[in-house]
Amino acid sequence: MTSQEVAAKEEGASGAAKDYRDPPPVPLIDLPELGQWSFYRAIIAEFIATLLFLYITVLTIIGHNSQPDPCARVGLLGIAWAVGGMIFVLVYCTAGISGGHINPAVTFGLFLAFQESYYTRYGGGANTINPAYSTGTGLGAEIIGTFVLVYTVFSATDPKRNARDSHVPVLAPLPIGFAVFIVHLATIPITGTGINPARSFGAAVIFNEEKPWDDHWIFWVGPFVGAAAAAFFYQKVMRAGTNNAFWSFSNKGGS
Amino acid sequence: MTSQEVAAKEEGASGAAKDYRDPPPVPLIDLPELGQWSFYRAIIAEFIATLLFLYITVLTIIGHNSQPDPCARVGLLGIAWAVGGMIFVLVYCTAGISGGHINPAVTFGLFLAFQESYYTRYGGGANTINPAYSTGTGLGAEIIGTFVLVYTVFSATDPKRNARDSHVPVLAPLPIGFAVFIVHLATIPITGTGINPARSFGAAVIFNEEKPWDDHWIFWVGPFVGAAAAAFFYQKVMRAGTNNAFWSFSNKGGS
Amino acid sequence: MTSQEVAAKEEGASGAAKDYRDPPPVPLIDLPELGQWSFYRAIIAEFIATLLFLYITVLTIIGHNSQPDPCARVGLLGIAWAVGGMIFVLVYCTAGISGGHINPAVTFGLFLAFQESYYTRYGGGANTINPAYSTGTGLGAEIIGTFVLVYTVFSATDPKRNARDSHVPVLAPLPIGFAVFIVHLATIPITGTGINPARSFGAAVIFNEEKPWDDHWIFWVGPFVGAAAAAFFYQKVMRAGTNNAFWSFSNKGGS
Amino acid sequence: MTSQEVAAKEEGASGAAKDYRDPPPVPLIDLPELGQWSFYRAIIAEFIATLLFLYITVLTIIGHNSQPDPCARVGLLGIAWAVGGMIFVLVYCTAGISGGHINPAVTFGLFLAFQESYYTRYGGGANTINPAYSTGTGLGAEIIGTFVLVYTVFSATDPKRNARDSHVPVLAPLPIGFAVFIVHLATIPITGTGINPARSFGAAVIFNEEKPWDDHWIFWVGPFVGAAAAAFFYQKVMRAGTNNAFWSFSNKGGS
Repeated sequence: MTSQEVAAKEEGASGAAKDYRDPPPVPLIDLPELGQWSFYRAIIAEFIATLLFLYITVLTIIGHNSQPDPCARVGLLGIAWAVGGMIFVLVYCTAGISGGHINPAVTFGLFLAFQESYYTRYGGGANTINPAYSTGTGLGAEIIGTFVLVYTVFSATDPKRNARDSHVPVLAPLPIGFAVFIVHLATIPITGTGINPARSFGAAVIFNEEKPWDDHWIFWVGPFVGAAAAAFFYQKVMRAGTNNAFWSFSNKGGS
Repeated sequence: MTSQEVAAKEEGASGAAKDYRDPPPVPLIDLPELGQWSFYRAIIAEFIATLLFLYITVLTIIGHNSQPDPCARVGLLGIAWAVGGMIFVLVYCTAGISGGHINPAVTFGLFLAFQESYYTRYGGGANTINPAYSTGTGLGAEIIGTFVLVYTVFSATDPKRNARDSHVPVLAPLPIGFAVFIVHLATIPITGTGINPARSFGAAVIFNEEKPWDDHWIFWVGPFVGAAAAAFFYQKVMRAGTNNAFWSFSNKGGS
Repeated sequence: MTSQEVAAKEEGASGAAKDYRDPPPVPLIDLPELGQWSFYRAIIAEFIATLLFLYITVLTIIGHNSQPDPCARVGLLGIAWAVGGMIFVLVYCTAGISGGHINPAVTFGLFLAFQESYYTRYGGGANTINPAYSTGTGLGAEIIGTFVLVYTVFSATDPKRNARDSHVPVLAPLPIGFAVFIVHLATIPITGTGINPARSFGAAVIFNEEKPWDDHWIFWVGPFVGAAAAAFFYQKVMRAGTNNAFWSFSNKGGS
Repeated sequence: MTSQEVAAKEEGASGAAKDYRDPPPVPLIDLPELGQWSFYRAIIAEFIATLLFLYITVLTIIGHNSQPDPCARVGLLGIAWAVGGMIFVLVYCTAGISGGHINPAVTFGLFLAFQESYYTRYGGGANTINPAYSTGTGLGAEIIGTFVLVYTVFSATDPKRNARDSHVPVLAPLPIGFAVFIVHLATIPITGTGINPARSFGAAVIFNEEKPWDDHWIFWVGPFVGAAAAAFFYQKVMRAGTNNAFWSFSNKGGS
């Protein structure tokens, strides 16, 4: 989910906050005044961001799996850093695209065209439930992992918080990257960490063995349930808490 | 300890600083004007923050302990990153709740309902003193570990420092998360790192074996002594040092 | 590539953005008004930055390779942190030199004068393609790795973004360091990570064995293709998207 | 060296910059108007900072060395994170004390009173040259390691840079902590990383075996040469480069 979508959803759901009128969001990519070009540019930008994200993270996973000496591997910690750090860099660079994969399945195909043999041999990034864990545990990991990420994205892009606390807009890309890093530390051993249906689907299409499809539904149901729960929680619990009449009164000149 | 509590204690203890009148703290959660709803919202917000914190960190510990291949584990470093990073993300998102566990024992119960078998098998997060260390060393580790954390929270939330140094309010969640990370690096081998009585108690209740109860008192005495010492040190030593008459005069219009 | 060069190239390539006139860049090192001295100072500053960068990173690699106990090594993750962290520190300290190696081959020679034996024994930092990977994969790794770095440098030094988003100028050195860190995590197992022709060339000259020269051309072609692609992408896709007429109008007083 | 000392030295050495008059530094600890109390407070604050720094880092090293299973250790990377992260936290909290050890030998004595047996058994933090490296290499590591740290401290506390670049004052504690982290990654395998004569001396006094005294002089000569070189380099090369007449003219009203 791109943070524009998050911001849009946030706007739509914030009808309960009557006394604070958020300014209309400034879209980063599809400015109406730029006409048709903006549409293709958005596709190109998303495509490139997806390519870079997948290239770096899949290469790290393949490099880890293909190294015969276990002590020369980057380890689970290295993989988690690669994913979380790449999200930090891409969020910083694109100021809100958040690595938001429009269609990783297409990008995956192009990307693997030149190193598919390594991919299929080492299963770089395909999501499956570790047989040591139950399906319910895997589904729970996807739900809560997505919740942590989406809750952090909401917190970082809330214009009310940005106006009030100086650390919110300045640090923004850092906690989003850290949330992805930490969710990977916790859930790589369980599901390989999906928290993105398009990524899980793209990897499953390319890998194309029986195992990734068995529990594939949890990589759709988990993220959607987690994201919906985070949206509900942020709007109905957290954001209601900043609904301070004095603040909006003194700040907006009586509006 | 939530940072509101820290701020409140700070206010109460700062009677010695006569010439600087801090503005009354703006409570983040229990705004009186929101009536009864704010009370339930605070409970929900704390409950969710506790759930996310415990879920991510306990899952990381279980994933580490259950992995038979030692080189495929996240390692002590990965566990310390998961705990410290999660505190960073939660402090950022809640701007001051600091993962402040109202009653982790309840949250623990709910959380473990769906994967208790993994927990009891791998003892995810129960605090005990490593037999290689004496009780006194364990108590000292808890005292100084809590001191480092509470001292950092005081430094990050001091309104005087925030007004003077630009890096203080902007970075705030980062050093708090780093303090937790580093205390875990140093004291996981000794006590498993408590520095939070409610967490230690909750884990001991669920784990319910003899070993966690033997030295359980140090996870209450240590944090309380460490937090009290940090409060005394910050108010009586560090904060007195910023007691600059010129600053408060020119800034407050002669008050 | 120093970020001044990046900024200069950016200026030259931004002819398409007609309505926004960037102010002329303020060069950090070669101020014309300082005359001849500035030229020598730039050489000294670059030389010292290169020396520090190579010293720290090569020492980390040698320390890793020379340690007989595999579990006492810093690991691939430690090497990646040393490289990325050093870039972060140098970018912070020099506000834009970016560790930009004018002639590492010379610096290398001087640096190795006092510990060449360790270098040649442990091959500290010489770039070669891992035999498990094809030349095409190695070239692709260098192209995309350089793309990630140069794209991040462009994003961090774009004056338009700096004016609009508070997190861009404040965090700037951090994502550049992180980009270097992550590219190393992904591509150390493939090519040892070049993404800098001068560094690869310097290391190959000193190491002077047959293996580093076999595929040496990819450490020139890859970085140049990657940097050119990133420059084209940033100017023609990403930067065109911020071409908001209202902003430049209201901000520049109708110019 | 505390950063106040650095700032003071910087002031004294900046006589060459005729056209820019830095304001007199605001001392953080020994304000003259607070009389005698400020002196004892400074001693207490330094003592506590030293105690916390040594406690956390020595405990991490002892925990690493005493763990029989090599894969359950925090590793060199974990030790480097503990040291660098602790410096980051202390610099953040004290806004410039920089962990500046007035007399670690005294603090060491007190600190070890309650766990000396672990210290002497596992040699927590005593600096010696690894027998695989020559004395010259060890001295070089101490010189360049100290250079990197002091150069970073100068860059972070330069009031000219703080006024010009928004990222300098905001990030300040972060690159200082990172510099310490990276120097440890590079030089722990060579000398155990001194870069602080008082710390090396304190550890040698307590450890009190023959080995730490053999090459003890390099932990005095190395840091002093490195710090002096960094001071000279920053003042005569880097700072001269920001000597922009236009800036000081327009900014200081013609002074």
